[in-house]
Amino acid sequence: MKKKNAKHNPNHKKNVKFFRNKKKSRNKKKKEEVFGIGQKIINSIILALEEDDKVYVRKIVEGLSEYDLASLIENLPFSLRMKLVEILGDKISPDVFPELNEVVQEQIIDTLDESQIVNIANELDSDEVVELLEHMDDEEQQSIIQKLDPELKHQVTSSLSYPEDSAGRIMVREFVCMPDDWTVREAKNYLLSDNEEFPEDFYTVFLTDEKFRPTGEITLDKLLRAKANEKLRDIMNGEIVPISVQTDQEEVAHMFREYGWMSAVVVDAKGRLVGVINIDDVVHIIHEEATEDALHLSGAEEGDVYRSVFDIFKSRSLWLTTNLFATIVASSVVAGFQDIISSLAVIAVLMPIVASMGGTTGNQTLAVVVRALATKELTSRNTWRMILKEFMVGLCNGMLFAVLMGIITYFRFPEYYMIAVVIGVAMLLNLAIASLAGILIPLVLNKFKADPAISSGVFLIAITDSGGFFIFLMLAKLMLF
Amino acid sequence: MKKKNAKHNPNHKKNVKFFRNKKKSRNKKKKEEVFGIGQKIINSIILALEEDDKVYVRKIVEGLSEYDLASLIENLPFSLRMKLVEILGDKISPDVFPELNEVVQEQIIDTLDESQIVNIANELDSDEVVELLEHMDDEEQQSIIQKLDPELKHQVTSSLSYPEDSAGRIMVREFVCMPDDWTVREAKNYLLSDNEEFPEDFYTVFLTDEKFRPTGEITLDKLLRAKANEKLRDIMNGEIVPISVQTDQEEVAHMFREYGWMSAVVVDAKGRLVGVINIDDVVHIIHEEATEDALHLSGAEEGDVYRSVFDIFKSRSLWLTTNLFATIVASSVVAGFQDIISSLAVIAVLMPIVASMGGTTGNQTLAVVVRALATKELTSRNTWRMILKEFMVGLCNGMLFAVLMGIITYFRFPEYYMIAVVIGVAMLLNLAIASLAGILIPLVLNKFKADPAISSGVFLIAITDSGGFFIFLMLAKLMLF
Repeated sequence: MKKKNAKHNPNHKKNVKFFRNKKKSRNKKKKEEVFGIGQKIINSIILALEEDDKVYVRKIVEGLSEYDLASLIENLPFSLRMKLVEILGDKISPDVFPELNEVVQEQIIDTLDESQIVNIANELDSDEVVELLEHMDDEEQQSIIQKLDPELKHQVTSSLSYPEDSAGRIMVREFVCMPDDWTVREAKNYLLSDNEEFPEDFYTVFLTDEKFRPTGEITLDKLLRAKANEKLRDIMNGEIVPISVQTDQEEVAHMFREYGWMSAVVVDAKGRLVGVINIDDVVHIIHEEATEDALHLSGAEEGDVYRSVFDIFKSRSLWLTTNLFATIVASSVVAGFQDIISSLAVIAVLMPIVASMGGTTGNQTLAVVVRALATKELTSRNTWRMILKEFMVGLCNGMLFAVLMGIITYFRFPEYYMIAVVIGVAMLLNLAIASLAGILIPLVLNKFKADPAISSGVFLIAITDSGGFFIFLMLAKLMLF
Repeated sequence: MKKKNAKHNPNHKKNVKFFRNKKKSRNKKKKEEVFGIGQKIINSIILALEEDDKVYVRKIVEGLSEYDLASLIENLPFSLRMKLVEILGDKISPDVFPELNEVVQEQIIDTLDESQIVNIANELDSDEVVELLEHMDDEEQQSIIQKLDPELKHQVTSSLSYPEDSAGRIMVREFVCMPDDWTVREAKNYLLSDNEEFPEDFYTVFLTDEKFRPTGEITLDKLLRAKANEKLRDIMNGEIVPISVQTDQEEVAHMFREYGWMSAVVVDAKGRLVGVINIDDVVHIIHEEATEDALHLSGAEEGDVYRSVFDIFKSRSLWLTTNLFATIVASSVVAGFQDIISSLAVIAVLMPIVASMGGTTGNQTLAVVVRALATKELTSRNTWRMILKEFMVGLCNGMLFAVLMGIITYFRFPEYYMIAVVIGVAMLLNLAIASLAGILIPLVLNKFKADPAISSGVFLIAITDSGGFFIFLMLAKLMLF
């Protein structure tokens, strides 16, 4: 959260009461710092850390803003990063934490004791605290929450009661709202009343009825140009669609993207305004979800840039193990045909081509379907059409590469001309199967609420490899022997 | 561009003059429409199109907003989509076009003649026109631009003079700006002066010096609460970092994401303010770039949901062809070892496992590196560290799976115990090579300004397959025969 807005009391009735944000105001990143910290600072801190020169380390870090310090921490190798955090200890401003990459944040939080985390959390906004606590185990989380300031404790508990990645988790509880029966004059007076302490950088005022249900919104430019006597109700944009606290963040991102929203109101089960989602938070969601898909499809994890070798090794080896079992299954298929391979080694030469082309075809479909599911382009409306289309594309490619590979094989091994037919037919069948698997696997996983980006690949490779080998070898056995 | 802002005259000197936007104002999507068009409408239009009932088709479409019509067009199968466009003809409002998915937009533009495109373009904003013309060949593009309204023609020509995907292309030329020596009163009067026609939904006023160089910005909430006599210069946020027109859009997105900007000013070579980039346009860039990476890594294309079977077939078969050649190279390696395969078919059974594990390892690294390059997390600062880290992870996994696969092989084929050693050593070597290839290939492609997401995969698979086969078969030959 880079914007500070007035907090509101969700329990107010007719008398709307607004609380000012008591916390230290952090403005949005000063633009002059965008070029970040230079290689020189990084080099000198690395040297100082390696030489264990704590005094010099503290001296270098002293003058840095929270953004630069966060960037410095991120850009250090894992071991030196931990060393720097140890040296700085409580000298690290709480404001540094929200600026850190999620993975780095977790690494540092893991080294802190409970009272340190509580002290940091008490200086942050509720959504930032939720991010901080989200990945802890329940016991640790609860123990910290109990020690937070009462208002923050209430907000964090409430946020954490919503499902992970839901609108309730990502919304901010700080925003400017007013009763919709106020006049423009009242609104302006309210906004002007508090010149010194008033929140910065808000663009929209949200309006509610007496039951605190959102009825509309009004942007500052409209408010600025409206006549003083007009009721907000009459000039507001009343065509708002409140998002439920339960809505998944991918769905939220989809709505923002599709409809050009700058912000959206979040309501609880009773339709009361409980939070606001701003476009800058959505930017992070869109970025994260897409990056996750790109990485998960290949069995990698986000944040690997910041992880230690051992942590990366752990997460990747898990995926490689599942891949190993998939290929062992495929190799068992081959094992059943050792007799024909012994008598005709050309079969072993050509066999991997069928499997590899199937894998590639399946992966193409898989990537499209996973992204289309994530961006809500693939819905119940067009599922059947898409299945048919992908199957047709698979068939077309199957025919093309059946002919192509048949010809290549014939010219390469003219002495076994029948094998050209075998590889052609195997190619056609495996590519058709692969494209079907590429769409059906993620659809089924999605149906069962599993993330299709994570596990589709292993199932796919098991099918395309085993299938490719089996079809090719079986056809070879039947037609050549 | 969903927001309408006042245009500015880039040639103004001391006397800043502002032009109002003459074009029809399209507000941001009315939020009540978010649930989009229902399955029922789609079904009835499909039926009407199939029955060629043009009157009924027109009747259904008549009441739809531009958003709903765009959504309807997108949700039809390719052939019916084209039929609908043909039936509606010039009845399709120009405002529908910017709402369409890029691929669908292109499909429709392809069916229109020049004068129709000119008529549509004249109703749109310059950035929307640029999007429309971007993918045409030079001749067609020039011919259309010559026929545009003079002001639009100037803007479009100027935008197209910047490199594709640069800040100059994505910036909007409509924004609110003022000289920074104005007072708050002057600013407010100016904003109030034009109550009826003034643009909607702008949040920031940009300030310039007498040479039209940006000096700062002021958000409306600050302006609203400032004292009337204060000079804008004294209350503005002067810490802005102008983006050059030449800056790549990925870099722009990175800055917005990293620093929480809501908008940024774009300047020409002389430092003059020529445009503004708003966060809602950045949302689309982030979404597109990440989706592109996810799809390109698997050899698929964005927009495949909307393409016809033939178009998808064309683009995918191209990628499959390059993959075919990579696997043929790998199979040639195998061909050199037919003699040992004939005498020991177990080799053919185990051979694909080494290659597959190498491919998976390489792809993990590849995905991480491609995304890290795109998100600017991988820079010259940490390249060497990352290469070393990925290589170490590859080695660790190599050792783990060497031992694991050695044991599995020993228990599976105890009669050929030496092959357990062979596959272990081959696994170790191939995984180490694969992880190095996974990082070096995209780095080299990036160095040569090629998109690492598109072509890395084929090089990688050529290396891991050929390498895997060669190492395993060569070791087998040396150690078993």
